[in-house]
Amino acid sequence: MEIICIGNELLIGKTLNTNAQWLAKRATAAGFTVKRITVVEDDVAAIASVIRESLQRKPKFIITTGGLGPTFDDKTLEGIAEALNRKLEINEKALEMIKEKYEAYAKTGKIEKVELTPARVKMAKLPENSKPLPNPIGTAPGVILEVDETVLIALPGVPSEMEAICEGSVVPLLREKAGDVTFYEASIYVSGIMESTLAPFIDKTMHDNPHVYIKSHPKGGEKEPHIELHFSTTAKSSKIAKDRVGKALVQLSELVKKEGGKVILTQKLAKQ
Amino acid sequence: MEIICIGNELLIGKTLNTNAQWLAKRATAAGFTVKRITVVEDDVAAIASVIRESLQRKPKFIITTGGLGPTFDDKTLEGIAEALNRKLEINEKALEMIKEKYEAYAKTGKIEKVELTPARVKMAKLPENSKPLPNPIGTAPGVILEVDETVLIALPGVPSEMEAICEGSVVPLLREKAGDVTFYEASIYVSGIMESTLAPFIDKTMHDNPHVYIKSHPKGGEKEPHIELHFSTTAKSSKIAKDRVGKALVQLSELVKKEGGKVILTQKLAKQ
Repeated sequence: MEIICIGNELLIGKTLNTNAQWLAKRATAAGFTVKRITVVEDDVAAIASVIRESLQRKPKFIITTGGLGPTFDDKTLEGIAEALNRKLEINEKALEMIKEKYEAYAKTGKIEKVELTPARVKMAKLPENSKPLPNPIGTAPGVILEVDETVLIALPGVPSEMEAICEGSVVPLLREKAGDVTFYEASIYVSGIMESTLAPFIDKTMHDNPHVYIKSHPKGGEKEPHIELHFSTTAKSSKIAKDRVGKALVQLSELVKKEGGKVILTQKLAKQ
Repeated sequence: MEIICIGNELLIGKTLNTNAQWLAKRATAAGFTVKRITVVEDDVAAIASVIRESLQRKPKFIITTGGLGPTFDDKTLEGIAEALNRKLEINEKALEMIKEKYEAYAKTGKIEKVELTPARVKMAKLPENSKPLPNPIGTAPGVILEVDETVLIALPGVPSEMEAICEGSVVPLLREKAGDVTFYEASIYVSGIMESTLAPFIDKTMHDNPHVYIKSHPKGGEKEPHIELHFSTTAKSSKIAKDRVGKALVQLSELVKKEGGKVILTQKLAKQ
């Protein structure tokens, strides 16, 4: 799985990329491994290039965020169409979804009349052989299409809309495609021992528990050693996953304690 | 300029990528255009691949974050070395920096004796023809090297350390290389008008002000139209930049008001 975030606001540091984190968390929980997140500018050629590169790596899913709205700087669908060498064409189902939205806005008095201006029709111009995904919150529908073995999904950049389309249409699909796979993670917090001293203990524990990935996250630098040790695994059942993580967690905790380190199982320290 | 963030914690959604935003903001303020941000896993081949792809696009700078520490999962320098086909070798200056750090830790009683274990020496193993950058806060030095026309800088993933090395060693270099270039940005907040109605006004204003980039950021969806219009430009002096943005801002504000929209110049709405 790859995530592609489109938007100059991310590249000038104006906006924090919370969408990427939200999507990565959901995809991981559904049993997928996110291999890459790419942020690219609002430019058709740049978007097309990132999509093409990603397709070459043959991920099961590519999810894009941003660039589906009515303004000129919303260029995602044009970029995808260019990458796939497909035409952009008005999708009748998408146009119907958009029309219904503006009819509802007109009823509440937000707009005077339902007029399908070029800017509004733009949101219904999808690459050939795409399907729109209903947007329960905003106007621009999401888009789903297939390219060989990859499912490509385009979601809006407004977080509430991205999340609503994802929960409604994408997460169920991810769960179905992932099959019986569970991701499990847990952390311990260690103090009184330096990260460089821990290194060989982590190596040993990972060697003895080959399915568990352990990553150390130093907090506050080596001067005040306080390290989060994060354990994670993906397994066919949550019992297997929990047992695996539990075994590795106990082994590493014992090694830390023997060296005089203090182990805290709650997340209290992390919130300091 | 490209930013590459290395760390599984970013790909599982455990950690929000604040480093990318911080770096993007600094680089933009220094006059650079960040063209791409890539997040990649803690894997030597994957890191090497991302570095190689980035170098092919010939950016002036590549800045990486993460993966410089003492543990096995810190693989950035190995990835860079593989990408550049350079050997990793103990850099005497880096080793000296690291030794001084542990001597200081020993004085404060954090460790019993200064022992340069393999995990500690690892942080001094840099790709050939690199220079270490002093880390005022943590232990692992940053790394700087040149590949053809690209300057490649590797910074740690712990935000406080990344920021300290960047402020001390990287920002001055960026300012020097950027020359006389200023980035300027301003926003207005618009309500009572839909994004799709605004679209042609933005087109017209950008057409009349070709050096100003205007991006609309809908907040709260089209149902409760409240849109941030963000203006930005890069120019040779801050006066030119401000004048340009000011002219575009006034023009678009007038167009919005004529259509019955409300324009707010302060950032109050954005903080709601």
